Amino acid sequence: VILGLVGCGHIGGSLAKAARGAATRILGADRDPGSAERARALGIVDEIAAQEDVAARADLLVLAVPVLAIPTVAAALAPSVRPGAVVTDVGSTKVSVVRGGEAAFGARFVGGHPMAGSERAGPEAADGRLFAGKRVILTPTARTDPAALATVAELWRGAGAQVVEMDPARHDRVVAAVSHLPHAVAYALCAALADQADELRGLYGGGFVDTTRIAATPASMWIDVFLDNRVAILELLDTFGAEVRVLREASAAGDADVIEARLQLARATRQRILG
Amino acid sequence: VILGLVGCGHIGGSLAKAARGAATRILGADRDPGSAERARALGIVDEIAAQEDVAARADLLVLAVPVLAIPTVAAALAPSVRPGAVVTDVGSTKVSVVRGGEAAFGARFVGGHPMAGSERAGPEAADGRLFAGKRVILTPTARTDPAALATVAELWRGAGAQVVEMDPARHDRVVAAVSHLPHAVAYALCAALADQADELRGLYGGGFVDTTRIAATPASMWIDVFLDNRVAILELLDTFGAEVRVLREASAAGDADVIEARLQLARATRQRILG
Repeated sequence: VILGLVGCGHIGGSLAKAARGAATRILGADRDPGSAERARALGIVDEIAAQEDVAARADLLVLAVPVLAIPTVAAALAPSVRPGAVVTDVGSTKVSVVRGGEAAFGARFVGGHPMAGSERAGPEAADGRLFAGKRVILTPTARTDPAALATVAELWRGAGAQVVEMDPARHDRVVAAVSHLPHAVAYALCAALADQADELRGLYGGGFVDTTRIAATPASMWIDVFLDNRVAILELLDTFGAEVRVLREASAAGDADVIEARLQLARATRQRILG
Repeated sequence: VILGLVGCGHIGGSLAKAARGAATRILGADRDPGSAERARALGIVDEIAAQEDVAARADLLVLAVPVLAIPTVAAALAPSVRPGAVVTDVGSTKVSVVRGGEAAFGARFVGGHPMAGSERAGPEAADGRLFAGKRVILTPTARTDPAALATVAELWRGAGAQVVEMDPARHDRVVAAVSHLPHAVAYALCAALADQADELRGLYGGGFVDTTRIAATPASMWIDVFLDNRVAILELLDTFGAEVRVLREASAAGDADVIEARLQLARATRQRILG
């Protein structure tokens, strides 16, 4: 199988590394020629080509570009893509992505989202073990070709991931809660300390490091996510803001019972989500 | 040196384990007889005694009880404490604790706060390496005996910690930012997802786990902290709430420039705090 990678960054590069054994050849394209060249030099892709050439030759085409770029890239590649090829993506939102993917590739497009990442970026950070033991959500629709779905699921299982299927709308609600809201909160937490950063330098514990780790993620991909999934995110930010106010008012009023109830609810909820 | 431990939980027990080599004997007291007995059975303390007896015999007395209990415990032990003994604590706030400690023990009390912890609790979770490489903030005042300060600093350096000194008021402002605010935010984040917990079960990535780790901390100690340091925490919660609203409004308005600016500020601030 010839694997085509459009976008040779951290996630695309990690998937290419994980698929190295299954692919006979890996073709890469990137709008940043430096990234593409580094991916080739690192052996992540075997060959660099224009994205239309990658699309024309690949049996399995992975669009690993920022979320808002996917419909545009998909439309641009639709005329070139090899007949019978399967196309997937790795974006953090799925409703708009699947709409754009199906408009371009029809039943052969399968939306995908690996629930794994790191605060690193670029092909240098690519890690073939990044997805091992992690969940990957695939979002087939009524239109999806079952054989295309099976091909994409096989790609991810080969990378060591656990494949979960759900429809694009449910995906976007779920990740708004477990991923997009935590990112927004971590970014806001850091930004809220901007005026005191010098006084705080070096005076942190593990709690600060962990709580804010995802705020070190490059901003570029998150701007797209906050814009694309804004309806679900805004609703959750409002629920979250109300919860912060409950804790604030209980502290202000010295109400230990309310604080305890909210903290116990938080612990129990976390435990239920972790399963 | 005879080490006296009032409170044989996770932090007190970890400090006792770390001090095992330096202490000739470790005496323990706990208002929960089960905790004390388990600490003795685990070899964390050599002997259990009433807290007044521990105070009467220890050269170095560590109060490892919840923050709001410290002034009361200190006042109760003031008549018993051995003349010349040094007294310290491990609480997460320092203004009210040092006031209570100095009222009871005068110049021989030194406030202390290890910036280390975990979501575990009880003597079973005690870990002699918990403080290795971590910061411990000591909060001497104009009244503090320099020899007492040196004794407490030596205890923590022996545990592998890096000792930082500052006055109690600055301590409380600093930890409100790097510890109390992150805890409040992590608790609120989990509580905000309570209604969806079943739908989200098992569908999390590393970002959710890390961002909410400290929300698994037992509620009991944090109720005290949110009440005791409420002035600083409320101010930070307001700044944080405003930052969340900026991000919310920018997403609602589709303003990528504002989102990018806040995310860049967040990343830069985190980097400055981590040094």
